[in-house]
Formats: sequence, structure tokens, C-alpha cells
Amino acid sequence: MPVTSEARIGLLGMGNVGAAFAELVAARADAVAEISGRRPMIAGVLRRDEGDFDSILGDSEIVVELIGGTEPARDYVLRSLEAGKHVVTANKQLVAQHGDELFEAARKAGVQLRFEAAVAGAVPVIRVIHESLGATEITKVFGIVNGTTNFILTEMARTGASFADVLVRAQELGYAEADPSDDVGGADAAAKMAILARLAFGTAIGLDDVAYEGITDIQPDDLAYAKELGLSLKLLGVAERREGGVSVRVFPCFLYGGHPLAPIEGPFNAVMVEAPAITEITMSGPGAGGEATATAVLGDVVSILSGDAPVHVPGERLEVVRDVASSFYLHLEVADRPGVLAAVADVLGQSGISVRSVVQRGTGEEARLVMVMHETSESAFYAALEELAKLDFMRATPRAIRVIEEEFL
Amino acid sequence: MPVTSEARIGLLGMGNVGAAFAELVAARADAVAEISGRRPMIAGVLRRDEGDFDSILGDSEIVVELIGGTEPARDYVLRSLEAGKHVVTANKQLVAQHGDELFEAARKAGVQLRFEAAVAGAVPVIRVIHESLGATEITKVFGIVNGTTNFILTEMARTGASFADVLVRAQELGYAEADPSDDVGGADAAAKMAILARLAFGTAIGLDDVAYEGITDIQPDDLAYAKELGLSLKLLGVAERREGGVSVRVFPCFLYGGHPLAPIEGPFNAVMVEAPAITEITMSGPGAGGEATATAVLGDVVSILSGDAPVHVPGERLEVVRDVASSFYLHLEVADRPGVLAAVADVLGQSGISVRSVVQRGTGEEARLVMVMHETSESAFYAALEELAKLDFMRATPRAIRVIEEEFL
Repeated sequence: MPVTSEARIGLLGMGNVGAAFAELVAARADAVAEISGRRPMIAGVLRRDEGDFDSILGDSEIVVELIGGTEPARDYVLRSLEAGKHVVTANKQLVAQHGDELFEAARKAGVQLRFEAAVAGAVPVIRVIHESLGATEITKVFGIVNGTTNFILTEMARTGASFADVLVRAQELGYAEADPSDDVGGADAAAKMAILARLAFGTAIGLDDVAYEGITDIQPDDLAYAKELGLSLKLLGVAERREGGVSVRVFPCFLYGGHPLAPIEGPFNAVMVEAPAITEITMSGPGAGGEATATAVLGDVVSILSGDAPVHVPGERLEVVRDVASSFYLHLEVADRPGVLAAVADVLGQSGISVRSVVQRGTGEEARLVMVMHETSESAFYAALEELAKLDFMRATPRAIRVIEEEFL
Repeated sequence: MPVTSEARIGLLGMGNVGAAFAELVAARADAVAEISGRRPMIAGVLRRDEGDFDSILGDSEIVVELIGGTEPARDYVLRSLEAGKHVVTANKQLVAQHGDELFEAARKAGVQLRFEAAVAGAVPVIRVIHESLGATEITKVFGIVNGTTNFILTEMARTGASFADVLVRAQELGYAEADPSDDVGGADAAAKMAILARLAFGTAIGLDDVAYEGITDIQPDDLAYAKELGLSLKLLGVAERREGGVSVRVFPCFLYGGHPLAPIEGPFNAVMVEAPAITEITMSGPGAGGEATATAVLGDVVSILSGDAPVHVPGERLEVVRDVASSFYLHLEVADRPGVLAAVADVLGQSGISVRSVVQRGTGEEARLVMVMHETSESAFYAALEELAKLDFMRATPRAIRVIEEEFL
């Protein structure tokens, strides 16, 4: 294009991703100018101890927020939107916890709020769900949206090491943060699933609507038995329409070998979208990393420079369904004596829970009973689990992990 | 949004996809209005024997071309763009063969030309490459972009049946057309790869720049031997930067079990994009089908109603590199006598071709020699193949199929 005007970007935050973004803008400014007719440049940078937000705001037409956390990020983003600036953010907690307020501010000001990098790094799930499938009735979005936990589970399965040992290794390799609690506890994946559910179902879902569990209680045992049963373990996020409402959850889950998500290993992310009109599409790629995340941020900047795009408008508020049906793996440590299996089967049978497979193995005084159930309501299953825990031959607290039934084989 | 104006769509073509699109517009008009503020409606339909193009053009703001083929589709699309109408098309041959002319017309008129449905059905590869990764330096785009051939290869491997028999079955099931030559001969995949290469590398690539082969010569034998070697066969499209230029090709190719495209079976499509900044992302889903394709078309309509988007501008013309390095599988039927393997190895060795694995099996009078080579220049390999064909113990024309080396395991 003949005439190229400058597009001034205010950059908030100069950590790993911020530095990668600043470098990428410099390297790809010509390419962006060719696509959009506008040449991006970093007009100002707000660091922890340097720079003044108000003067950066006044001097920018797009604000890129890469600080992370909810405050002061929320304050800066709101003030940017209110000042009529487009905003790009990679901040999943911000969008998941304060989405309603932020989208409303963007709508009022007639500006764009983009956040591709907040979910699955460079894998463009936000754009695909919000734009490509914007008018499609999506029934389910699910996948692996946290690279730290997927790396840890892959390594636990590969080496047989404990969660604690693998976590240390992940920290050494830069796949886990010094404080890993948001990742391994599931809060990070929950925030991402809240964002995906909001866009997929067009309803105001927040972090509080997501029921989540992490992987801190996973034992090497579980992974060893799972291998015998042909299963691999993933921390799954699942957002789906259920009984007129929606259910949004994050939980560790076994997948059969034929499942499309079973081969996703290491720090990779993968998201599947199901809709009657398209059956399903799957997207996968690196879930994090400074340069991949910065690439997603730059993609959003290019979109803003290229033209308008729809701002998310939440529709009717959908009920959040919390008691859904699931299939479970159950690990019991019991005294090795006659009648134990019959007693366990009796508790399960009375709760209407049907067993799909059993592996029993004696270890001298004790035995391990590993079972996979057919699908049953979670409340019924957990009630049965409480009953099982009371049985006098139980030697440890029963452990349960969800299983996705083998629908693909 | 409070005020919703109508968006009038002129629909050219009322076949399988056209009918699905008309139905989808009616079903999802409210959803589109909510996202974009504009309510789409079909203002006129051009059928083979019914309707008048000029009056439909005058009455529409968006023209959706679902006729297929190059004429009269090219004429209608050009006239629509010149009349200042946005155009959405699912027509890969049109974009691959006449892209330069069409993009130029869209730019001149300041309107959008969108074609997500032209490649990989509902899998949003166009949007991801053109928008999400628009400013990213992409080094390679490759994948399975023809569902008919992937279905046929999957069934040949599964059942051991011949190409001809499986083709009949594919036609009965609706996975192959009455005249399947564009699909099985590779021209359909070649058109799609030309489009992907154009967008990925920002250069004017047309169908003539794509070297393509189909799957009509694949023998059940090849698939049986491949299984022994741990390989699965796919018709791959590969567009990549090579030696300062680009190479765009379509060819049947063996993949090792660990390759991300190996599990893509039946009529599914999958595309991988490689870029230094993002490592790689993979997208997969149904490659065709009326409803899936119509969903992609509607996604494009929604984008047009929502705002502007960049029109593709070809950059510098890149050289098309035709002699690239590949790894090959080689199937030889030879007389079963001493010295045969040595003579074959001698020809290969003199051409600088190194052998990776060999399976030899006698069948009485004859023997089969199945070999996998390390990577070598294709021209050197084909020259060696001509030499091999001249050897007096050769009982049939040597057969060669490319192999992707096991980079993922």
C-alpha cells in the first residue's frame, strides 16, 4: 500500500512475553504495514518501576496489557477502553474474572478488546470460536489448555516419578513457575475454560461458574494402572451444553488411546470444538512460551489495524449445571480377604453404578482394586464413594479420576 | 444491538452446499444479527435454469458463489466485485487459477473477497494463516486437504482392497463424485495448496506452480508392505520455503506412526503450519460435506458484516523450486537370483542415495524388494529409478512413493 501511517502501541509490562512482543513488533513492522497499511511501533513501555501509565495512554492508539494478574491490570485496561483505545491482552484471569465489565466498556467506547493469547498461546482458538464459528451453534468445547500440567502428567507417565519430583524438574526446565499453584491446582485452566465457554455459548460465564480440580493428588500408581487399561491421563477442561444449561469444568481425566487428545504430550495444548454443523474441529500447538504468546498478541494487533470486529455481547444467562454424568476410574486399597469385591460391588450396585472393567491384585496383606465405571451421575458416584470409604476393609482413602469413554474407537 | 438492518445476499448456485447455506442462513439469522447487528437474508438465487444474474447482483450487498468450476463463476465473481459487492466463495479452482485477477478487483473496489470454505471445509485454515498468523514468517504449510483420497487410502489400508474397488465404495457412500478425476488425480488438493501457499508466503502462487500427483497408481501391496515398516499412506500437500524460493507439491506419501498427521483417517482433513515463532500448529476436522462447508461460508458472511479485513496483496514474486530433497520408499519386483540386491544397491550408491531399510521376500521365481531411502534430491532419485528399470532382472516397473522421515519420534 502506498501511504503507511504509524500505529502507536502502549506496552504495559516488560516480562518474558512483553520483551518478546517488543522484539516481534520491530522485526515484523514491515509485514504488518503491508497487510494493514499501518506500521506498528512501541510508543511507550510501562515497567514495574518505570514509566507513567497516563502519559503512555495519551500517546497510544492501542494498549497491549502483558502485566498479568487482576490489579492493576484491570484498572489500566478499563481506563484504556474508556479513553477510546483498543486493547489487546494476554491476561486470562482478567478476562475470566472481569469479562462483563471489560466487554461492556469496550462496547460503550466502540473499541476492540482482543485476547487471543489468553487461551492456548499461539493456537487461535479464540478467533475460531468467536469469528469462524460465531454464528454456529456450538455444543461442546474441550481440551488441554494448561501446558505445565500436561508436561508434568506426560513425564509422570513416562518416568513413573512422583508429582513432586516431576514438578521440580518442570520448574528447572522453565515449564512451571516458581509458584505453580495456579497451574497445578487447575485455576489457570479454569480461567481459560470460562473464556471459551463465554464465547462458545454467548453467555456471561465467569471464573466462579467453573468447577475445577488440579493434578496435585495424582499418584504414580494411577498412571501405572491406567497404562494397563490402555488409558492416558490429561487435565481436561470441558465446557458443554447440558440439560438446557451449561457445565464448565476442569478435572484430571483418563482418555482411551484412540481419543484425538490422547497423543497431545508435553507442554502442548489442544482444543476440540463440537457443533452439529461441523462435527468437530481440533486445534493444537504450543500452549505457552514468550514468542508464541507474543505472536498471538501481534495477530490481534494486526486485526485491530485491519478493521473492525465484533465485540462479544453476552446473550441470555444460561443456567450452570453442576451435577453431570461422568465415567470414573476408582482405585481402592483393601484388605486381601474374601468378600471384599462382593461388598464393593454391592455398594456400587445399590447406587446404580455399573462396572466396566476391574483389575485386582494382591500385595500380601493388602490388595489393590482398580475399576472403571460406566457413566453415572457425579453426585451418585461421590455418595457411593463415601459409603465405600466407611467399609472396614478399606486401607486408604478411595481415589477416583474421571474417564472419557471410548467413543472414537 | 438495538437496530438491526437487513443484509441482502445473492446466492449463486443451489446444489448441495447452496441448499445447506440457504437453510443455515434462515436458521442462524438471529445469531448473526446479535453478533454483527445485521440480519442476513437470501435476496435472490441463481440456479442453472432459473434466475437472472444482473437482477440478483443489483439487489444484493454480498454475493455468495457456490456454483463451482471456473466459468461462469469467474465472470460472475469479477462482475460482483467490480459492482462494489463483497464476495464469498467456496470455489478453490477459481481462487487458485484466477486469484491475481480477483484479488486485484477486490482491492480496486475496496470490498472483501473471502474463501474460507475453499480449503479444508469447516477447518478455519484460511483465517488462521491470513489473519492470526498474517504478520508471522511462515516456513511451511502442509497436510491432508482432500477428504475423498484420504477416505480411499484409509479403506485400502484397512481392507486390502484395490483402488478401483474402494473408489466404487466411496462413490456409493457419497465420499467421491461421479467423476472423481480432480480428487484422485490430485488437482483438487493442488488448487488448495496453491491458495494456502499464496497466503502463507504472501506471493502470487497459482495452480500452474504446483507439481502434483494423485493416488490412482497406489497398489494394495504398497500399503501392506508399508504396514510392516510402520508407515501409513496419505496424499500430502506441502508448501514450503526452500532455498530462497518456494516449493508447492501434492504427492502420496508414507508417514511414520508418530507423525501428527498419521492418525487422520477417513474423509477428515488436517493442516499443519510451521513458523519459527510458534513451532507448529495443527488444525483438523471434516474436510467437506454440505453443512460443514456452508458453516465456513456463513463464517465469512459474518466477518463481512462485522467489519473490514485485510485483502490479500501479493508481495515479491518468489521463485518456485521444483527439485527438492525427499525420502522415498521403493518397491521392486525382481527375478529371485543371486546378485540382484548388490546390483540395485550399486545403482543407488552411484547416485549418492543411501538406504535406510530393506525388506526382501521371495515368491518362487520372483522376489520383492521393498526399500526406504534416506533423503536425497528428487532429480537424482528419479534418474536412478530410470537406471534401475533397465536392469535385466527387473520384472515390473519400479514403484516409488515419498516418505516423511520420522522427525517426531
